[in-house]
Amino acid sequence: MKSNNRQKLLEVFENSYPNRDYLIVHQTREFTSVCPKTGQPDFGTISISYIANRKCVELKSLKFYLQSFRNDGIFYENVINKILDDLVAVLEPKWIEVKGEFTTRGGLQSTVIATYKQKKLKK
Amino acid sequence: MKSNNRQKLLEVFENSYPNRDYLIVHQTREFTSVCPKTGQPDFGTISISYIANRKCVELKSLKFYLQSFRNDGIFYENVINKILDDLVAVLEPKWIEVKGEFTTRGGLQSTVIATYKQKKLKK
Amino acid sequence: MKSNNRQKLLEVFENSYPNRDYLIVHQTREFTSVCPKTGQPDFGTISISYIANRKCVELKSLKFYLQSFRNDGIFYENVINKILDDLVAVLEPKWIEVKGEFTTRGGLQSTVIATYKQKKLKK
Amino acid sequence: MKSNNRQKLLEVFENSYPNRDYLIVHQTREFTSVCPKTGQPDFGTISISYIANRKCVELKSLKFYLQSFRNDGIFYENVINKILDDLVAVLEPKWIEVKGEFTTRGGLQSTVIATYKQKKLKK
Amino acid sequence: MKSNNRQKLLEVFENSYPNRDYLIVHQTREFTSVCPKTGQPDFGTISISYIANRKCVELKSLKFYLQSFRNDGIFYENVINKILDDLVAVLEPKWIEVKGEFTTRGGLQSTVIATYKQKKLKK
Amino acid sequence: MKSNNRQKLLEVFENSYPNRDYLIVHQTREFTSVCPKTGQPDFGTISISYIANRKCVELKSLKFYLQSFRNDGIFYENVINKILDDLVAVLEPKWIEVKGEFTTRGGLQSTVIATYKQKKLKK
Amino acid sequence: MKSNNRQKLLEVFENSYPNRDYLIVHQTREFTSVCPKTGQPDFGTISISYIANRKCVELKSLKFYLQSFRNDGIFYENVINKILDDLVAVLEPKWIEVKGEFTTRGGLQSTVIATYKQKKLKK
Amino acid sequence: MKSNNRQKLLEVFENSYPNRDYLIVHQTREFTSVCPKTGQPDFGTISISYIANRKCVELKSLKFYLQSFRNDGIFYENVINKILDDLVAVLEPKWIEVKGEFTTRGGLQSTVIATYKQKKLKK
Amino acid sequence: MKSNNRQKLLEVFENSYPNRDYLIVHQTREFTSVCPKTGQPDFGTISISYIANRKCVELKSLKFYLQSFRNDGIFYENVINKILDDLVAVLEPKWIEVKGEFTTRGGLQSTVIATYKQKKLKK
Amino acid sequence: MKSNNRQKLLEVFENSYPNRDYLIVHQTREFTSVCPKTGQPDFGTISISYIANRKCVELKSLKFYLQSFRNDGIFYENVINKILDDLVAVLEPKWIEVKGEFTTRGGLQSTVIATYKQKKLKK
Repeated sequence: MKSNNRQKLLEVFENSYPNRDYLIVHQTREFTSVCPKTGQPDFGTISISYIANRKCVELKSLKFYLQSFRNDGIFYENVINKILDDLVAVLEPKWIEVKGEFTTRGGLQSTVIATYKQKKLKK
Repeated sequence: MKSNNRQKLLEVFENSYPNRDYLIVHQTREFTSVCPKTGQPDFGTISISYIANRKCVELKSLKFYLQSFRNDGIFYENVINKILDDLVAVLEPKWIEVKGEFTTRGGLQSTVIATYKQKKLKK
Repeated sequence: MKSNNRQKLLEVFENSYPNRDYLIVHQTREFTSVCPKTGQPDFGTISISYIANRKCVELKSLKFYLQSFRNDGIFYENVINKILDDLVAVLEPKWIEVKGEFTTRGGLQSTVIATYKQKKLKK
Repeated sequence: MKSNNRQKLLEVFENSYPNRDYLIVHQTREFTSVCPKTGQPDFGTISISYIANRKCVELKSLKFYLQSFRNDGIFYENVINKILDDLVAVLEPKWIEVKGEFTTRGGLQSTVIATYKQKKLKK
Repeated sequence: MKSNNRQKLLEVFENSYPNRDYLIVHQTREFTSVCPKTGQPDFGTISISYIANRKCVELKSLKFYLQSFRNDGIFYENVINKILDDLVAVLEPKWIEVKGEFTTRGGLQSTVIATYKQKKLKK
Repeated sequence: MKSNNRQKLLEVFENSYPNRDYLIVHQTREFTSVCPKTGQPDFGTISISYIANRKCVELKSLKFYLQSFRNDGIFYENVINKILDDLVAVLEPKWIEVKGEFTTRGGLQSTVIATYKQKKLKK
Repeated sequence: MKSNNRQKLLEVFENSYPNRDYLIVHQTREFTSVCPKTGQPDFGTISISYIANRKCVELKSLKFYLQSFRNDGIFYENVINKILDDLVAVLEPKWIEVKGEFTTRGGLQSTVIATYKQKKLKK
Repeated sequence: MKSNNRQKLLEVFENSYPNRDYLIVHQTREFTSVCPKTGQPDFGTISISYIANRKCVELKSLKFYLQSFRNDGIFYENVINKILDDLVAVLEPKWIEVKGEFTTRGGLQSTVIATYKQKKLKK
Repeated sequence: MKSNNRQKLLEVFENSYPNRDYLIVHQTREFTSVCPKTGQPDFGTISISYIANRKCVELKSLKFYLQSFRNDGIFYENVINKILDDLVAVLEPKWIEVKGEFTTRGGLQSTVIATYKQKKLKK
Repeated sequence: MKSNNRQKLLEVFENSYPNRDYLIVHQTREFTSVCPKTGQPDFGTISISYIANRKCVELKSLKFYLQSFRNDGIFYENVINKILDDLVAVLEPKWIEVKGEFTTRGGLQSTVIATYKQKKLKK
């Protein structure tokens, strides 16, 4: 799926408590994409943690967004950074972390963690 | 249940050690409310941690307070922030954190954590 | 994928110890197919245990065979029975069990276990 | 909810493999009802295991059926036996077991397990 | 407490499904008595599993019954056999097992399991 | 038991390494007292961590001290603060923390943690 | 220690329920002896399960008996069979099993299990 | 290594309790060999359980025997059956089971279990 | 294998997100080398965590690199420091940590953790 | 054993990476000594973590050193501080922590942790 179209899958709703910095975490153990080198399916757990600014991500749209990687050939490192970029663009959060824990390939288990922080966020 | 009435369910008793900053944690794995979009029941674990000021929350009244959400349609983010607001109003604690770990919906597990700190609390 | 074509993905090699009844177990936590009702992806762990007769299933071909369900719309009960039928047809084992433990949907976790036993196999 | 009406919530679909005795298990950790003595909510995990005859229970209808106990006052022993009776009436299974593991009350954790076996089912 | 008086603490209610052999389990991790040799408190987990005949034990009365050992000096082996005797006398169950898993004393962890079966109960 | 008498149960021995700040932890899973409201027994795990000054608490006397709460009616919050007060009075430690993790009551599990730090303790 | 002297360490008390076949289990994670080949200490968990006849083993004497192996050079297989022989001689039990789970040596973890059954004990 | 030479690595000692059927288990989590197809190293846990006849296997020699597979290209199924054959030849045990649980390859985890029973061994 | 040749096994690819400090972790439970003193095989889990600069390590080449230790005699401390040196030389990362958790030898389990940080990396 | 002689059991080897601050951890679950009050054996897990300066402790000698406490009567607090003193004297490390987690006695589980830091070590 083209990157532009994927981002449009994400729907948001207004944060009812914009003056309070509170943490929201969504995690799925059902992420799958395709290895761009071997064409073999990859599997992993994706965890998204963020402190909302004015917008929160709607759960069902997040599910469809994550499912949209199902048939895409993409490296682990890029999966995580792309999800981070898309969520930053759509949510403009105060802080956000995206973590992917992928299943063992060739005896090696890989994890990738990327973070974004608004410049003005204290601490 | 109306928000005003719900807060009145919470009873307090006097903190016998107001000069010592000590931590109190109450946790229930038996929280349930209703999804406002689908009408389906939601389930989760609610953890309340606080450093008391002059008042402590009475356990039985806390149980009834948490049960009062049973038939209310309310989003995860709002459940946690409302419990935080009610407890801050009633206890005026030095510090308090409310955490909700909700069960998986559509393959996504969600957690929400909100915190309040008295302005004069050092550290 | 058509059932006929799928079965052809399975390759076998000769059992070097046909006179000894020994157990072989293969398990993957990376099974995925599609729900025929909702079009949503399903996920699960598939375990295949068998006592070989003259043939053993080759591991790499088994991987490709299980991956072939990736985009098929099929119910849990049918996934397990079809895998059982295909393996019985190809391996003619003395005994075989196929188990699928699927991830939670709507708060319900489902498991399906089907077994085949050669008529002459003594217990 | 009246028992008659509750049973009607259960929908079935035809078993595609009636000649094979295979096991189907559905489990929810989100069961709740009300204690008839105290009016307090009860919580538990319900596990349903069965060998289908001609009919299988449809998952979504099973979810609604189990949710129908949400506001009913009913003892643990009766919850399990009623679910067993309803499923036997609707599915006429070869074998079925219903297990309820309820959360701790007064320091006591309770489990109830009831089973039904068709008379002609060989062991 | 005298043995006679203790047994009277147990209250029963009528089994609504006397024609079905189903299993009921009650477990407490909060059992305590006193060692008759050293006067030191003992602690353990008591599990009671039974197939009811005409009567079931009422949960609250079971809690009070188990609490009645709190200040009694009694050996592990006798705790379990006495609970078994009292429940057999009051419930006349088809089958019953009482298990006590006691905490480590002098580096030794002890478990005692006693069982009663009605003579006419098949298998 | 009267508070004055209870404190006298605690015996100490001289710290052989008073110039080194090292941590000592004692934990028992066998704490029990009585709820002052319901008269029902309470159970919990008590953990005591401290950096000794000139005195260490003797283990056997600590056991008898903790057992002395067995028949006292006392709230969770007060149990922890009283143990802290008694140990501070007797040990004059550089730092000490007392934690109580109590068993579930009415579906709520409670933990209380209180700490004392000598004024001159660096860090 | 000489075998004759070791057996004398075991003390017994009368079984109060000789007509009921009930199970008694004692387990210690603190067993140590010495390897007769290398002189290095061995460590393990010893579990003793038995159905008493007329006599039960006294716990404190069992602790001293097991400690008596501390400086003896003895193979795993012989430890377990000797403990079994000594307990059979002293208790004349209806059934008894002795299990030793020893810690890893040279990358190999060893377990030894020996059992004795009275000839007249019905299964 | 040639099969003949490998078997000679196994040393035995005399069973001191030949008249008692007792179980001996040795397990290593440090087994490694080479995949004959890809030349890649394989890893697994090997468990050997047996009831000795007149001979027991010496632990150090068993370690060297298992290490001798380190650079051999051999399939999972053959590893287990060869170890079984070698141990049966050397020990002539009453009963023996060899189990190999190999690490995940291509998302598939494999286990192989083979058993031998002396003809005259009563069950 | 000579150190120079081993380093050449490592292949890199360009980091697509060089301006973002994100964490990459690769872990294998299948590391084995040889003890230089005893000639016996060693086993362990190796975890590599790094914040890439301009280059990322290619997974398959990392697997071959780690396998190249299989027949080398090398101490635990040196294994970890050599892997760290090689990865620093090839990746020039902003930060990197190499951890080895080795299996028990002589009752002692060893872990070694070495870290490198670019001088200009803030925090 | 005399303290002077015990320290001589510890052998060292030169740290090959003295300019890098890296962590080495050795842990044994097989520590035993004797209680100086009761003469009863004590058991525990000892963990030694250090940042080497010029010397590392040799593993086999560390094993013999720890075994030398086997028949010594010594309190928990002193065991840990003595091991720390001996290792500081022999290794002159940049930083070192010794932790002992001892098994339950009289229902109390004890842990002791002592640390030493070179004066010039930054952070």
